[in-house]
Amino acid sequence: MTAPAPKKVVLAYSGGLDTSIILKWLQTEYGCEVVTFTADLGQGEELEPARAKAELLGIKASNIHIEDLREEFVRDFVFPMFRANALYEGLYLLGTSIARPLIAKRLAEIAAETGADAVAHGATGKGNDQVRFELGVAALNPALKVIAPWRLWDLTSRTKLLEFAEANQIPIAKDKRGEAPFSVDANLLHTSSEGKVLENPAEEPPAYVYQRTVDPEEAPDQAEVVEIGFERGDAVSIDGERMSPATILTRLNEIGGRHGVGRLDLVENRFVGMKSRGVYETPGGTILLEAHRGIEQITLDAGAGHLKDSIMPRYAELIYNGFWFSPEREMLQALIDKSQEHVSGTVRVKLYKGSARTVARWSDQSLYSEKHVTFEEDAGAYDQKDAEGFIRLNALRLRLVAVRNARAKG
Amino acid sequence: MTAPAPKKVVLAYSGGLDTSIILKWLQTEYGCEVVTFTADLGQGEELEPARAKAELLGIKASNIHIEDLREEFVRDFVFPMFRANALYEGLYLLGTSIARPLIAKRLAEIAAETGADAVAHGATGKGNDQVRFELGVAALNPALKVIAPWRLWDLTSRTKLLEFAEANQIPIAKDKRGEAPFSVDANLLHTSSEGKVLENPAEEPPAYVYQRTVDPEEAPDQAEVVEIGFERGDAVSIDGERMSPATILTRLNEIGGRHGVGRLDLVENRFVGMKSRGVYETPGGTILLEAHRGIEQITLDAGAGHLKDSIMPRYAELIYNGFWFSPEREMLQALIDKSQEHVSGTVRVKLYKGSARTVARWSDQSLYSEKHVTFEEDAGAYDQKDAEGFIRLNALRLRLVAVRNARAKG
Amino acid sequence: MTAPAPKKVVLAYSGGLDTSIILKWLQTEYGCEVVTFTADLGQGEELEPARAKAELLGIKASNIHIEDLREEFVRDFVFPMFRANALYEGLYLLGTSIARPLIAKRLAEIAAETGADAVAHGATGKGNDQVRFELGVAALNPALKVIAPWRLWDLTSRTKLLEFAEANQIPIAKDKRGEAPFSVDANLLHTSSEGKVLENPAEEPPAYVYQRTVDPEEAPDQAEVVEIGFERGDAVSIDGERMSPATILTRLNEIGGRHGVGRLDLVENRFVGMKSRGVYETPGGTILLEAHRGIEQITLDAGAGHLKDSIMPRYAELIYNGFWFSPEREMLQALIDKSQEHVSGTVRVKLYKGSARTVARWSDQSLYSEKHVTFEEDAGAYDQKDAEGFIRLNALRLRLVAVRNARAKG
Amino acid sequence: MTAPAPKKVVLAYSGGLDTSIILKWLQTEYGCEVVTFTADLGQGEELEPARAKAELLGIKASNIHIEDLREEFVRDFVFPMFRANALYEGLYLLGTSIARPLIAKRLAEIAAETGADAVAHGATGKGNDQVRFELGVAALNPALKVIAPWRLWDLTSRTKLLEFAEANQIPIAKDKRGEAPFSVDANLLHTSSEGKVLENPAEEPPAYVYQRTVDPEEAPDQAEVVEIGFERGDAVSIDGERMSPATILTRLNEIGGRHGVGRLDLVENRFVGMKSRGVYETPGGTILLEAHRGIEQITLDAGAGHLKDSIMPRYAELIYNGFWFSPEREMLQALIDKSQEHVSGTVRVKLYKGSARTVARWSDQSLYSEKHVTFEEDAGAYDQKDAEGFIRLNALRLRLVAVRNARAKG
Repeated sequence: MTAPAPKKVVLAYSGGLDTSIILKWLQTEYGCEVVTFTADLGQGEELEPARAKAELLGIKASNIHIEDLREEFVRDFVFPMFRANALYEGLYLLGTSIARPLIAKRLAEIAAETGADAVAHGATGKGNDQVRFELGVAALNPALKVIAPWRLWDLTSRTKLLEFAEANQIPIAKDKRGEAPFSVDANLLHTSSEGKVLENPAEEPPAYVYQRTVDPEEAPDQAEVVEIGFERGDAVSIDGERMSPATILTRLNEIGGRHGVGRLDLVENRFVGMKSRGVYETPGGTILLEAHRGIEQITLDAGAGHLKDSIMPRYAELIYNGFWFSPEREMLQALIDKSQEHVSGTVRVKLYKGSARTVARWSDQSLYSEKHVTFEEDAGAYDQKDAEGFIRLNALRLRLVAVRNARAKG
Repeated sequence: MTAPAPKKVVLAYSGGLDTSIILKWLQTEYGCEVVTFTADLGQGEELEPARAKAELLGIKASNIHIEDLREEFVRDFVFPMFRANALYEGLYLLGTSIARPLIAKRLAEIAAETGADAVAHGATGKGNDQVRFELGVAALNPALKVIAPWRLWDLTSRTKLLEFAEANQIPIAKDKRGEAPFSVDANLLHTSSEGKVLENPAEEPPAYVYQRTVDPEEAPDQAEVVEIGFERGDAVSIDGERMSPATILTRLNEIGGRHGVGRLDLVENRFVGMKSRGVYETPGGTILLEAHRGIEQITLDAGAGHLKDSIMPRYAELIYNGFWFSPEREMLQALIDKSQEHVSGTVRVKLYKGSARTVARWSDQSLYSEKHVTFEEDAGAYDQKDAEGFIRLNALRLRLVAVRNARAKG
Repeated sequence: MTAPAPKKVVLAYSGGLDTSIILKWLQTEYGCEVVTFTADLGQGEELEPARAKAELLGIKASNIHIEDLREEFVRDFVFPMFRANALYEGLYLLGTSIARPLIAKRLAEIAAETGADAVAHGATGKGNDQVRFELGVAALNPALKVIAPWRLWDLTSRTKLLEFAEANQIPIAKDKRGEAPFSVDANLLHTSSEGKVLENPAEEPPAYVYQRTVDPEEAPDQAEVVEIGFERGDAVSIDGERMSPATILTRLNEIGGRHGVGRLDLVENRFVGMKSRGVYETPGGTILLEAHRGIEQITLDAGAGHLKDSIMPRYAELIYNGFWFSPEREMLQALIDKSQEHVSGTVRVKLYKGSARTVARWSDQSLYSEKHVTFEEDAGAYDQKDAEGFIRLNALRLRLVAVRNARAKG
Repeated sequence: MTAPAPKKVVLAYSGGLDTSIILKWLQTEYGCEVVTFTADLGQGEELEPARAKAELLGIKASNIHIEDLREEFVRDFVFPMFRANALYEGLYLLGTSIARPLIAKRLAEIAAETGADAVAHGATGKGNDQVRFELGVAALNPALKVIAPWRLWDLTSRTKLLEFAEANQIPIAKDKRGEAPFSVDANLLHTSSEGKVLENPAEEPPAYVYQRTVDPEEAPDQAEVVEIGFERGDAVSIDGERMSPATILTRLNEIGGRHGVGRLDLVENRFVGMKSRGVYETPGGTILLEAHRGIEQITLDAGAGHLKDSIMPRYAELIYNGFWFSPEREMLQALIDKSQEHVSGTVRVKLYKGSARTVARWSDQSLYSEKHVTFEEDAGAYDQKDAEGFIRLNALRLRLVAVRNARAKG
């Protein structure tokens, strides 16, 4: 479809080489005004260089948007997701997936504020991120065009990209001359690595891939315990000290990172139909999941917990596939949030050489009843004879089936 | 309901003090003939002492059934369950739950063979095991009576039990005089501990509770890798050597145990309505789950995998609740088994100080296509432009919702 | 468990023979004070005779509670349930199930208000209603005892019941001397009939069983249309006239009843483990379900609708089994309610000789886009070429599976 | 992607104007050899005219494939689907969806047999059928190209199509000069109509749209009963006479059609993202669904039935979306088929003025136990006291929640 060229484009701009090339390409291809948007989601890079670079590439100051979104990211995206104990394909904590909707949201909002008619991103045509950006934008500002240069241009090799950069006076850092041996995405929740040296799932990832966690074999010989306080399903304190959401996650990343917690080597199914291999490091998130499960164990009713468990895979898949801003994700969120009203208390997690394990949990909202479960005399809390009727009625249909089947066999 | 007294009872008999008391109680309470059934499920105890004890208590030789069920246990119960990656409440590998149906099956079968009209077990009225035994028996031999002495008798304290034992010449091992500080169940898949010193979930389990795994902090400083071969979803070899199911699990238990793999401290929801705290050690099973997931990652289609994930919680709950021999568990098993046809290949797992992590996997049945996923030129395997249409149609409904919602607010 | 006798009991009292016998039995068995609770849920019977009867049986005026709960019933129970399009086992509109929680709620509340320590009901030990009453009471007032005389007494035959009635001066209506040929439950949502003449599911129910709907073959030869207005998922008007919830359901019952709409002959699975055959008449509810689906068709997003469909069976089962006041029902309700924000508009339903069919629907919140769907020129609303990429990426994994499977066979 | 032109194409050819234009367009556009495939799926049209037309358009006799697939259609596609009681979005019997995979299968097979490198179909870029054809072909013969002329050519108006036809000597039937007022698809399971006069969902479909069922208001004044025999979930006889699958469906269509059974006016969600309005007539299928539910009511266990109900929406969605030949559909089918082993017996359905209702059902595999359910003395089959324990343990967690919540508020 040959749509009319965009007039003003909000670009998700990291300040790196690739998105700088996109910036210039948008200007030259469409002759359009470019607005840059650079966010601090905890990826651990300075943002001001991105401002300088944008200015260098001719973006006027009022068109440069740089924002610290770390608190919003954790409070409104990471924490709601952790209420669900979400794991994609049983193992992946969705660190990249959960960051994309927030970027899409700000792209759509800045477009509305600046009167832009399009947004652009630097995700390739093979991955999930293009989907996540574009579904988010469609849901929030359906009239916006989305430009995905990687699906459009003919800069299909490293050589062509560098030529374009040179021809357009885009500075190229020395270490970007050669190709990176793998591709990285990072935010406050995780660091993911994929591609190139990681493309063969039969080979163990080289040690230099890991960036955020020490090798468990290099971690301290001494275990460490951390106590995480929860209110209504969200972490609110570490070792008794109340902190903001982003502070909590930052602190847990530090603690987990030094104990080698949260490494994952995974082959996963992308929404676009292929399998890919990724290496994830989610130190704080891994502790948080463990602790959240720990506090739910004593504060969440069985019926509530089993219902949550049963819808979790679908919830995780929605987030992975980019449907954060969809009616069905919001419906599931309503269900999940409803369950968390009493998920408050404290969990003690022990960290040691790559593992994080709950070893204790307590809460004034606990449903655990020692009185009922005890092996000792229970003073009438529970009448063991009730079990007979319970079992007999649960067994009734099985008995009827057995009798029928025997009859059917003759 | 006052049913007529049983005439001949098959008792699940461990040879221990409690089931010996039950044996004698059945004889004295009902004047009935008792058939003992003692199975080796890999619990790590000699069985011949149980024979001697039964004889001592007056059971004639032809009424003593002692069986090695380890291969059947792993082949027909553990492995089918692991095809599902089953975890109860996100964490528990169902080590006790999966053993009960096999015991129920043999109780029902031996009753049929020996003309018994009842079976008896030593599970209490507060736990899940009574349910698992009795649902299994109901499904397999619906006419049998089930006798659960713990729900019936007045031997409600340790003192009364010991008095009964003494009054009936039941030998009492010295270490059984005092009460055990916790209760243990073991089989080839796991060891579980609960009760007494473990009843406060706010206190870390004492070190002496663990029986099958070394403390991760005492585990070797050197990581170890193990390669597990799979065929159609089941493990068939270790480090290239083909072995029987029980041999594989035994070997993985040894390896995992010495690396401190598979400890779990859990508060779970019992089917009978209360929460309880258990400590589980599942060294081999933990490795097996990790490896099975690893091989599925490259051999299982996304649609198949996501469907499996979505029904897994229900499948696990059925097993936990004792419904192994139910139409719905068999239906889910048919679904799961159907998915495993191509789940063959090899997974390398690294064990270190309590953790077991997949680091490589390969298969001649792999669905992983480096050609599609590669960051390099893909020679036309994948047309990135396809992604635009894919995303646009996935976004269409979200756009229509956004337009409607804006109109509704407007 | 021999609990201490209750001192003051709130009895769900219909004024009929059976609950009058229970009233007297409670007095004689326990020597306790009895509080009667009689509710108008639209069952179509006068309530004042229940007052007179209770007084006759010695209940003091301040202990007689008679309430018109029709609006609360429809507003807080029936309508929330219809937002889910709930059908148990594919067909049953849950007319009895949804009334029980409200009765349980008022029993628990009146017990709290009057200082009673127990409640009693007239449901038998074979049915679902005992479960629904008792789970509701447990969830709302867990300290209350529940007395279910049918599970306790020895009045196990019609003859014994009548003897007890006579011995206790309980008036017996002439038509109650003989046994009713079937048992009936009615409220504003439905009339159900079961037992006796209906116990053989191979025999068509006799015509005299039906009480609320004409035989479709006797219904008017002229079809009738009715237009139902919805706001946020609830019916708010009929043929343009706004009405209260109970008024709407009453009106729809009249209209549906005269067209023979809403008859159902069903064999269903009771929670207590057996199958039973029931005949249901739900004239207004059947129209309401049809109309609600009709308005959802144009106002509910596909993702939202499919999620609702997928959890509906579980929601319906929870209500059927008596878990209205459970955390998981409330979680599902939150999900469902979240979906209904834009489910507003009007549906035209045609009634004719037993059927109710949507023939038109419109809404200013519609998501239906003639512009997109039209066979005519669509002015660029939809680019058919997008479908190619959409299909190719959806097909990618299937292609990879096909290639793998061919290779595996090869 | 500019793929090389196909050399030999198998075309799904109806013999009508549109696919004749496609045939000629393929020849002129690609200069390729065309193989026609015309199937009798019970659409009610003669096939020989399609042969004559193909010959007229220059297709050699050996390239013309005409097949009667009615038995395969019903046996291998319709019946397996009906075992699931599949309804898309609560109402649609999937009549079009279930026919497409069979056509895709034969296209792929004929391509393999004839050495063709592509297949072509006449579905537009807005609908579901393109997806169903193409996913089926991809799953069965992944190397085949698929040509969808409606997404490719510039014949975007009726006028252009007719001009092309005239320019290429394609005969145009007189009644095809003008445009049809709506579009029709038919096979042995249903007739669907959509488009044009049906595009406004606020207007009742005109009477002339219906082609296969009489208006209920014109149906006989006399009800008719039909008895359908089932074996393992499939219909095998009508009124005691054994028949082949296609014969049964044909017969039920006749019976249902004359009673106005199976009309549906629906707004549904297409897989490609838009809502569309369709009018469906499924007379035999409607009877079959009702009867299948009737026989399951007495022969299917509650656990099995509830599991089936819970996965049905997903199964139906897979079929609707075109994923018949997917691993996950096959997994669900394995689950469903496993449940049907004892679904055998007879159901009596009454047809009257548009409705089909089960009025009786019986089976020698019945699980219905009058002995258990009876209101009369049950001779000890069921001990009502068991219900107390059953309820108390089901209530336990609700009690613990209530106590906790009160404490939390306190």
